[in-house]
Amino acid sequence: MTVITLTTDFGLRDGYDGVLKGVIWSILPGASIADISHTIAPQNILEGAVVLSRAAFYFPPGTVHLAVIDPGVGTARRAIVLRAGEHTFVGPDNGLFTLILEAADRRNWPVRVVHLDKPQYWLPRISRVFHGRDIFAPAAAHLAAGVSLGEIGTPITDPIRLDIPRPARTAGGWTGHILVIDTFGNCSADVGLDQLGGREIRTIRVGGVEIHGMVNAFGDRPEGELIALFDSSDSLSICMVNGSAARRLGAVPGTPIEVYYAE
Amino acid sequence: MTVITLTTDFGLRDGYDGVLKGVIWSILPGASIADISHTIAPQNILEGAVVLSRAAFYFPPGTVHLAVIDPGVGTARRAIVLRAGEHTFVGPDNGLFTLILEAADRRNWPVRVVHLDKPQYWLPRISRVFHGRDIFAPAAAHLAAGVSLGEIGTPITDPIRLDIPRPARTAGGWTGHILVIDTFGNCSADVGLDQLGGREIRTIRVGGVEIHGMVNAFGDRPEGELIALFDSSDSLSICMVNGSAARRLGAVPGTPIEVYYAE
Amino acid sequence: MTVITLTTDFGLRDGYDGVLKGVIWSILPGASIADISHTIAPQNILEGAVVLSRAAFYFPPGTVHLAVIDPGVGTARRAIVLRAGEHTFVGPDNGLFTLILEAADRRNWPVRVVHLDKPQYWLPRISRVFHGRDIFAPAAAHLAAGVSLGEIGTPITDPIRLDIPRPARTAGGWTGHILVIDTFGNCSADVGLDQLGGREIRTIRVGGVEIHGMVNAFGDRPEGELIALFDSSDSLSICMVNGSAARRLGAVPGTPIEVYYAE
Repeated sequence: MTVITLTTDFGLRDGYDGVLKGVIWSILPGASIADISHTIAPQNILEGAVVLSRAAFYFPPGTVHLAVIDPGVGTARRAIVLRAGEHTFVGPDNGLFTLILEAADRRNWPVRVVHLDKPQYWLPRISRVFHGRDIFAPAAAHLAAGVSLGEIGTPITDPIRLDIPRPARTAGGWTGHILVIDTFGNCSADVGLDQLGGREIRTIRVGGVEIHGMVNAFGDRPEGELIALFDSSDSLSICMVNGSAARRLGAVPGTPIEVYYAE
Repeated sequence: MTVITLTTDFGLRDGYDGVLKGVIWSILPGASIADISHTIAPQNILEGAVVLSRAAFYFPPGTVHLAVIDPGVGTARRAIVLRAGEHTFVGPDNGLFTLILEAADRRNWPVRVVHLDKPQYWLPRISRVFHGRDIFAPAAAHLAAGVSLGEIGTPITDPIRLDIPRPARTAGGWTGHILVIDTFGNCSADVGLDQLGGREIRTIRVGGVEIHGMVNAFGDRPEGELIALFDSSDSLSICMVNGSAARRLGAVPGTPIEVYYAE
Repeated sequence: MTVITLTTDFGLRDGYDGVLKGVIWSILPGASIADISHTIAPQNILEGAVVLSRAAFYFPPGTVHLAVIDPGVGTARRAIVLRAGEHTFVGPDNGLFTLILEAADRRNWPVRVVHLDKPQYWLPRISRVFHGRDIFAPAAAHLAAGVSLGEIGTPITDPIRLDIPRPARTAGGWTGHILVIDTFGNCSADVGLDQLGGREIRTIRVGGVEIHGMVNAFGDRPEGELIALFDSSDSLSICMVNGSAARRLGAVPGTPIEVYYAE
């Protein structure tokens, strides 16, 4: 079986996401296609990078992940394929795969990247505004059908990485940032179990508010209370029980967060 | 062929719904997966129960329905599987399957319920915040792959049922409630063909408005008019032709509705 | 392999789109089903016609396209199947397939239309409000399973066409209209490469604004600038770089647009 995932900022109204499936099935009939998201904020490469990196590795080995958040479409930005371990990623070379590269680094996975420069694997006619349809979807289908990286493009070694602010160790804990806010208004930070695991947390400061200690589950506190917990990606997340922490805190991606250890 | 459906309040932006598909296809490659809804109002168990119960039985016998509206995730609430006739339901034991149980009662279908307490059918590592991914999706995939209820859990007899207000017979008709409001603003009630069939309806009172008689189809009346009809679930529904009855009436789930017979 | 696409105004919350998949898989297990859109503006037949016609032909030959924007459901409006070349369309006879018929005319494709009047290919019980479920989805599944047009209905020759305003040649160029606005706020017109190709464009007037010349790609101009380009459907599109031209211009479908050649 072949699985292809889709992550875009196309929205769900205009049929652009459906077109990707039509192109894929025209090349690889019967492929299993899963939408990861089509409602990434328009042109928000970082949000796309976070959502993709948190979902991708729950798919089976061999999955091809097509990701198109592509404000530079039609300019000189490259189209690339990135293979990290047993997962393959297809999309624009604009930093969208930064967190995939970091995940591969952490896991010591082999990484190969090629520039998609072989038009025989694209649609016959290439628009300047919809490479998702004309280049990336056909390439993803051919890769899922067994075309090798060597056949589909030319090796490169310098894929673009986003310049993301990084968390830092402080005297009494860590300082970091809200990385992404989900549909529920949960605010997920760039510090998590990796940095904070095994230490007792006394206080978290974010958006002018202090939160004391962490909880294990939403149901541990009453409705409307702000809580801190490790979320499903093992990141520190500031949440409101049955409510929106982002609205309560006025938090946005990039909002600083300070964590203090107990002793 | 195996079909699995998904009903959640995860929203469509964050990739959580895609993760469910990745987990399912990792266990059961090629399963046909249909989204019923991922935009149930957050934590609204009743809305999830209504949407699920109105869609589920249009799927083929043997379908496994995964439903996750789960404000109690990570607390002591149980994870369950419920088999009603030839349909199987997987999710939290919080009342989400109340209307499925009632449908099975009405149809005299056999019902079996088990507590999902066998970790060998879950992901290896269980978060406290995303049992949809870690417990329910793997269990659904294993059930669709043929694992029996006896293997996957321990029988229980007391699944939780929501305490839903009920319609009542009155001297001249019925009194009930708006049960759910759909995307179009149609207001579907907890009385319908079962209670009202075969009698002529003279007047319906809801939201301070009187509607006289019922129609068969939207096109029977001009744009903007409030109408009453039996909807696609055979429920009494108050609608506005090409408009939103909910907005016009200020109706919400729970709003009372009174129905008077003609004679 | 059999592909069925879905284009509706059902929204994504109520499970109506999921029900279509359940009905289809009950008749044709394992069919590959792609959503084109379920968020066409309610009852907006023209928007559905545009989205469908721009996506449909990227699917493989043999695809069955189910489209339900159906304000006349339950009235005397006919249910039809239209075969244009190797693509088959199923839905209400209300103009939804106007642009498919025009595409077939332009390409000299054979067109056949039948009235869906054979109840043996429907669900056993037909509601007056949800023919998508009761008539169109079963018909689409039977067609995808190999039932012929002759078996499923009675030939007709007068499918309804929408009366759409048309662009016109002027002394110095063309005058047309905004046809559809996408999720990004890009305003796509009813003039495009067919009318304007090969001529240099000097000025475009729309919404009280003048745009000078055209560009090839979004990235050719700075963020926030209004641009004109040929979009992925070869239509003239007025866009804002990383923003919404529709909001900036107050444009809606039908807004006039004037194009002036350079000499």
